[in-house]
Amino acid sequence: MSNISVKVKPLTAEAFEPYGDVIHTDGGYLEINQGTCKRFHDLASIDIDENAGRPILNIFSATPRPRPIAVKLLERHPLSSQAFFPLENKPYLVLVAAASEKIEVAALHAFLANGRQGVNYRRGVWHHPLLALDKETDFIVVDRGGDGENCNEFHFPEDINISIDY
Amino acid sequence: MSNISVKVKPLTAEAFEPYGDVIHTDGGYLEINQGTCKRFHDLASIDIDENAGRPILNIFSATPRPRPIAVKLLERHPLSSQAFFPLENKPYLVLVAAASEKIEVAALHAFLANGRQGVNYRRGVWHHPLLALDKETDFIVVDRGGDGENCNEFHFPEDINISIDY
Repeated sequence: MSNISVKVKPLTAEAFEPYGDVIHTDGGYLEINQGTCKRFHDLASIDIDENAGRPILNIFSATPRPRPIAVKLLERHPLSSQAFFPLENKPYLVLVAAASEKIEVAALHAFLANGRQGVNYRRGVWHHPLLALDKETDFIVVDRGGDGENCNEFHFPEDINISIDY
Repeated sequence: MSNISVKVKPLTAEAFEPYGDVIHTDGGYLEINQGTCKRFHDLASIDIDENAGRPILNIFSATPRPRPIAVKLLERHPLSSQAFFPLENKPYLVLVAAASEKIEVAALHAFLANGRQGVNYRRGVWHHPLLALDKETDFIVVDRGGDGENCNEFHFPEDINISIDY
């Protein structure tokens, strides 16, 4: 039995680039609506066309897990991206591994997102199901509707205990 | 000069049906992620395919206007729907008129959305630019990118003073 603890880094666009987009309002904007509104435009690469897919908008309501958070599996969406943005300014954790057939433990990376950051997982990128922290947290989610199997899971071997160091 | 005051009603899915979807979590959900997450699935009819459009995700940051709110114009998107969901649980106003070439004042309807309700304007539905209330309010916005002129404005005649009764 081996024990692995994944360290948590702050979420930045640069560090997250291999996995997708960080959705945020730190960048430039267009002024619209007679100067009453800032439009932070086109913040994520939404990729949903495969196999006649369509964009769908959802709300996910995630319950915090006991700490330390035990990592048993990751999932990926082979046909689409998947974007999340938290409501009510609540931080959360993100655990990812690059697109591949099998996940090596060394490929795991964990990030702490603040409540004003969303993430958009690129198609095929392995990611842990939502990791709310202190409270139930709701997220706006934009992903794909349509035919085809669009969720795979990877289960880690039972002789490895993986947890997130947070 | 005539003065028109538009009354504000609570936002409900039924009352808003002629204009689009109310995005909310009052309905049923799917249990996902090993029972740790509720998925409120496919909450809006996202309509962005026209003229090779693609879905885009944005954040709009809206400044409140002086009250009573003076209504000078409405806009519509002839090629797509447009969905809004407020961040940080802040209420806002919605002012709409059914899709048509010209807007009669009698066709205006105003709604108060609570901070846990979004709206998705159906293609062609006239709507006022964002109406934040007490504070600057950010919204996740899902609309369309791509070629084509996708915003028209209708300006009311200058001899009519329209305001929102709120």
